[in-house]
Amino acid sequence: MYILCSDLEGVFVPEIWINVALATGIEELKLTTRDINNYDVLMKGRLDILRQNKLTIHDIQKVIKGIDPLPGAVDFISWIKKRTGLIIVSDTFIEFADPLMEKLGRPTLLCNSLTIDQDGNITNYNLRQSDGKRKVTEALHNLNYKVVAVGDSYNDISMLRNSDAGILFRPPENVIKDNSDLPVTRTYEELKEIISSKEHLLQ
Amino acid sequence: MYILCSDLEGVFVPEIWINVALATGIEELKLTTRDINNYDVLMKGRLDILRQNKLTIHDIQKVIKGIDPLPGAVDFISWIKKRTGLIIVSDTFIEFADPLMEKLGRPTLLCNSLTIDQDGNITNYNLRQSDGKRKVTEALHNLNYKVVAVGDSYNDISMLRNSDAGILFRPPENVIKDNSDLPVTRTYEELKEIISSKEHLLQ
Repeated sequence: MYILCSDLEGVFVPEIWINVALATGIEELKLTTRDINNYDVLMKGRLDILRQNKLTIHDIQKVIKGIDPLPGAVDFISWIKKRTGLIIVSDTFIEFADPLMEKLGRPTLLCNSLTIDQDGNITNYNLRQSDGKRKVTEALHNLNYKVVAVGDSYNDISMLRNSDAGILFRPPENVIKDNSDLPVTRTYEELKEIISSKEHLLQ
Repeated sequence: MYILCSDLEGVFVPEIWINVALATGIEELKLTTRDINNYDVLMKGRLDILRQNKLTIHDIQKVIKGIDPLPGAVDFISWIKKRTGLIIVSDTFIEFADPLMEKLGRPTLLCNSLTIDQDGNITNYNLRQSDGKRKVTEALHNLNYKVVAVGDSYNDISMLRNSDAGILFRPPENVIKDNSDLPVTRTYEELKEIISSKEHLLQ
């Protein structure tokens, strides 16, 4: 028996911060973990920019409500849930993810949280733990599950490498170059094929 | 942040084996973990009875397809999924659970599996691990989640006692007597109330 652990942004929904950048016109908010390897540096920078521009959680949530899942994502999720368990493992925040999870049929999500003051200003972010994605695969291994892991970005690599089958989905060129041994998929059909082909190894 | 870990049978769906007993007229199949504390003794007895009566997985699955979730279960699941993550932790088998999970909207299920021969005879059962329910709460604690656990029966007690809030749901009298310190709920409304009242302790 195996569980599919998948990243959220870039796999099932568009990058949230890129959409916030587009909606607000703030170019620096387009940077993601695809560009900056160190997540703490990236997040502190984002919170600084929000503060400077007086953007609250309500502004961000308004943008997120307008985001739709990637075309085919809902079908893929329905396909995998008929075969096995799906756990979405994301560095995003529960306060951001909720409207997206509704649109994805509310699969199980493990993620982080924000500290928000009474006026809606995001004052801090709370990582549930360091290297949280890898630790989810460890936890499932401790429960005697095999793990298939899917992600697109630097912050997914330790999860992919600690799983029984790590698969890149629509990764940027720099992630492919740094991880040339990992299989690369670009469509949900390719992802289904590679998962199906590995299932006999996952009993 | 917390995750709700819940038992399946007796909480969201009727006891599967009792329904098999009713459909086949085999009285001994009515025994559950509510009656026999030792799961291995219970399961080996069940498989012996199936063999003696020439009942295959196909016969059992036909019965299970006719079982509906308990009234209110689907609404409760929808309620909890809007608040937080739900993981169903069951001693049942993936080969049994599938039609029921479809009716419950396919929440994440951690459970066991069967060994089935080419003719559909169930030749063995495979526990994923010993004391698997408790180990799920441990795994979630290792991921820095708090855990609320819900169950009705002896095999749920170690999960309930290892969680941050253990709640009995429609337990039989002997389980209540042996665990008089655990809160008892009898309706989904009571369950919602007690979960809501504990949420401030689960941040």
